[in-house]
Amino acid sequence: MIPPAALAFLLSRRVGHLATADALGTPHVVPVCFACTEATLYVTIDAKPKGPAANLKRLRNIAANPKVSFVADRYEEVWSRLGWVMLHGTAEVLEQGPEHDKAQTLLRARYMQYRDMEIDALPVIALRVARVTTWGKLAPT
Amino acid sequence: MIPPAALAFLLSRRVGHLATADALGTPHVVPVCFACTEATLYVTIDAKPKGPAANLKRLRNIAANPKVSFVADRYEEVWSRLGWVMLHGTAEVLEQGPEHDKAQTLLRARYMQYRDMEIDALPVIALRVARVTTWGKLAPT
Repeated sequence: MIPPAALAFLLSRRVGHLATADALGTPHVVPVCFACTEATLYVTIDAKPKGPAANLKRLRNIAANPKVSFVADRYEEVWSRLGWVMLHGTAEVLEQGPEHDKAQTLLRARYMQYRDMEIDALPVIALRVARVTTWGKLAPT
Repeated sequence: MIPPAALAFLLSRRVGHLATADALGTPHVVPVCFACTEATLYVTIDAKPKGPAANLKRLRNIAANPKVSFVADRYEEVWSRLGWVMLHGTAEVLEQGPEHDKAQTLLRARYMQYRDMEIDALPVIALRVARVTTWGKLAPT
């Protein structure tokens, strides 16, 4: 479970970074919008790529190796105010179903930009949180 | 070589995200300050950790698996302005020497916060860029 202070920090951030790795251990990292409960972080696929969604590198990596890491951080020029929350766990790709739909509802609540996008049929990445690490200042500055 | 537009975008960002993975392919991602030339991105270790610097997870991962990925991005609420530059390559840890010192000079030029920190004896991660991918809008908004 994500501790309350870490969850509050995560929910205060608008963008995070999701790292995956392929079967050979080559890492890949992308900025992502996200929603989060105490146990799971959600990232939806949000745009039609050139080919099927399954061709996205992050999804191919998860299919080959479900271990993922995520970080949300605050950068400020006053470095005593820096802070981050990192989540470690395994990713599951939800193609449809109640949890898939709940995740997209949570995402639309956080990001009005998703409300007019046709994302319902697109997969959601669910990061099942196994471990949380934090660093620096998490309280609002 | 990093194309000029991608390099200009990178240099406009104050924080990036470095992904490493351990020998088993478990990814790890941290926010980092960085400097960059056309061929190499530099990140210095900047604080004395609890143990020797070599105990930092990012350094242990690089020792076990030098493949790394880095992304710098711009997040704005107007999503047509989003953009990122991703670097793929291998990391080398510079303990000392001319390139180590040049990297820290570049970092001190970009971040005045480093000018008063005793970083000279700390290692620098050098990401040798093998491939660059970009997405979205890289021009200034």
